[in-house]
Amino acid sequence: MEKTLKPIRCKAAVCRVAGEPLVFEEVEVAPPKAFEIRIKIICSSLCHTDLSFWHSKEFAPIILGHETVGVVESVGEGVEEVVVGDRVVPMYQPNCGDCVVCRSNKSNICAEVPARILGMPRNGGSRITDGNGATISNFFGISSFSEYSVVDVASIVKLEPGMPSDRACLLSCGISTGLGAAWKEADVETGSTVVIFGLGAVGLAVSEGARLRGAAKIIGIDLNPNKFILGKRFGITDFVNPKEIGEKPVNEIIKEMTNGGADYSFECIGLSSTMSEAFFSSKMGGGKTIILGADLQGSSLSIKSTDIIFGKTIIGSILGGTKVKVDIPIFIKKYLDKELQLDEFITHEVGFGDINKAFDYLIKGESLRCIIRMD
Amino acid sequence: MEKTLKPIRCKAAVCRVAGEPLVFEEVEVAPPKAFEIRIKIICSSLCHTDLSFWHSKEFAPIILGHETVGVVESVGEGVEEVVVGDRVVPMYQPNCGDCVVCRSNKSNICAEVPARILGMPRNGGSRITDGNGATISNFFGISSFSEYSVVDVASIVKLEPGMPSDRACLLSCGISTGLGAAWKEADVETGSTVVIFGLGAVGLAVSEGARLRGAAKIIGIDLNPNKFILGKRFGITDFVNPKEIGEKPVNEIIKEMTNGGADYSFECIGLSSTMSEAFFSSKMGGGKTIILGADLQGSSLSIKSTDIIFGKTIIGSILGGTKVKVDIPIFIKKYLDKELQLDEFITHEVGFGDINKAFDYLIKGESLRCIIRMD
Repeated sequence: MEKTLKPIRCKAAVCRVAGEPLVFEEVEVAPPKAFEIRIKIICSSLCHTDLSFWHSKEFAPIILGHETVGVVESVGEGVEEVVVGDRVVPMYQPNCGDCVVCRSNKSNICAEVPARILGMPRNGGSRITDGNGATISNFFGISSFSEYSVVDVASIVKLEPGMPSDRACLLSCGISTGLGAAWKEADVETGSTVVIFGLGAVGLAVSEGARLRGAAKIIGIDLNPNKFILGKRFGITDFVNPKEIGEKPVNEIIKEMTNGGADYSFECIGLSSTMSEAFFSSKMGGGKTIILGADLQGSSLSIKSTDIIFGKTIIGSILGGTKVKVDIPIFIKKYLDKELQLDEFITHEVGFGDINKAFDYLIKGESLRCIIRMD
Repeated sequence: MEKTLKPIRCKAAVCRVAGEPLVFEEVEVAPPKAFEIRIKIICSSLCHTDLSFWHSKEFAPIILGHETVGVVESVGEGVEEVVVGDRVVPMYQPNCGDCVVCRSNKSNICAEVPARILGMPRNGGSRITDGNGATISNFFGISSFSEYSVVDVASIVKLEPGMPSDRACLLSCGISTGLGAAWKEADVETGSTVVIFGLGAVGLAVSEGARLRGAAKIIGIDLNPNKFILGKRFGITDFVNPKEIGEKPVNEIIKEMTNGGADYSFECIGLSSTMSEAFFSSKMGGGKTIILGADLQGSSLSIKSTDIIFGKTIIGSILGGTKVKVDIPIFIKKYLDKELQLDEFITHEVGFGDINKAFDYLIKGESLRCIIRMD
């Protein structure tokens, strides 16, 4: 291990004002603390969660970016899992591997190293400061829109040589959330019916997961009709556009299409209103509703007990229950075995200098995933 | 099979006016239709659900009673599972054994023969009329507060000779609901923490189920302090009386007692407010809330998605997921093997003529189960 690690000065795209273009600045990235790793970012992809936090006034100045692959530049005390030169993919929910939760198959919410919106998961704080020495907030313990960043060893998995970085970065968040939701939380069965509210990358990854499990009918719900064309690649068999069905609630349409209700209903938008529709769309007697997004406006999901007692289940999930060290290697193997589609999620690519274009594509609903390559 | 079955005239305790004492009348019980069985009631036990419907103005005149054992007096066309003289225990949720749901282990809500509040599950209507020939409503397809009644073959399991009728009747509803909830819906694990809202027979049966699974801590919540004394028999280790904790919400007390939240949280009262408390009392990262009662006032359970996404699950359940033909034999075996406690639920016994006393005991919170023996 290197004895005297020094700060690195490098370029970062900083969110200075919520909702305004990121600004390129020279920043200083401190050496990793214990159980942390400093990485040189290879590429990132832009996730809708970056957009949500970019819009929010509470967090700036902040360095966003949390779907990424980097190469280990240096390691802090206690890090044995990787060495300098290894490529790693991080995930915002740590997976220490040792605690009671990590040793169980019940949850991915590590009891030892907490996920944090701001600050490093284990040691807290940010490792990045600006030209004036002022701290710039760390995002989800990753902050990959910088040439260098620091991540926790509990948040990463080491990549084997065969896996391309610009595919692996997709597994940091959105795609894994959808796959995990279909495979781990819902445990979708062959021949079943699935409804997915919201056909962004997460919703389409749910579809991809359901397709691979042999679901008989996968109904996508989205306001954008182009999503049906995109969705067919990932197994969407039927499409409902809420703008085109008149006064009838979506859940009634779904019940008609699924003989009373879907086996699995996924909410991938993050709105209480669509969560309720998703719940109503699920069948009595074993129907599962999986909530993947949070309504950040804080409004509540309102459920009548006289509905839920008829054998319905609502499952809330972070990252679709995915554990970075357990599940990412499985997803990678499925990709390398040409079973799981990842390439199809990539609709755009930009250089780091054009990162604001990636935001535009996503805001306009044109992109699923835009790869941002470091220069 | 008998060729020409005739109506039977017998005594029944009829709910004529909601909330007023049952009235003894001579009624006529029609022969069983196809796939139905006419039974002579041996004994019943009074369940809180009888009370709920007794209070409700919408249902009278009705013959209540749905926890029972009877002996087969005659069978309708197509019945092969039992013969005259067999003892049977019915359950209000049918289990045809043949449909896609009955053949799966995902739900107990039979897709072929529906449970109905009023009327026979398969063929509809009531088999009981009063002295004026007017129909008296059937309750849950059972209506056991009558010397004779008719049930559907999909709703019954045949009792082997060793099992006492006055213990088997407890398994028709409440006790099975609690056991099923603990064993099937929650799948309680050894060493786990459990919180139970409401220590009636259902809640105590949850405790009995959790105790047999080796739960480390079983916290009971009730307004009646006597329930803690009763509850200890069924494994309750800790007790919280919401009247004695001041302003602090119950869920905060539970979180303090369980290192952040219970593994399993059961709502056995049927109030939206306690359902919310139960949900808040469950832990992040795998905590399950099991809703066993319905709020008949129709008010809603309000859940923030920002709470549920942290790995929480809400499961709604009818009868704790219990299937009459699959699970009742298992519960009976556990009783006969002296593993499962049933005797301890019986706090009172009355003859049929004193049935209104059974109501008094339950209303006053004095009884868990009162056996009503036919004269």
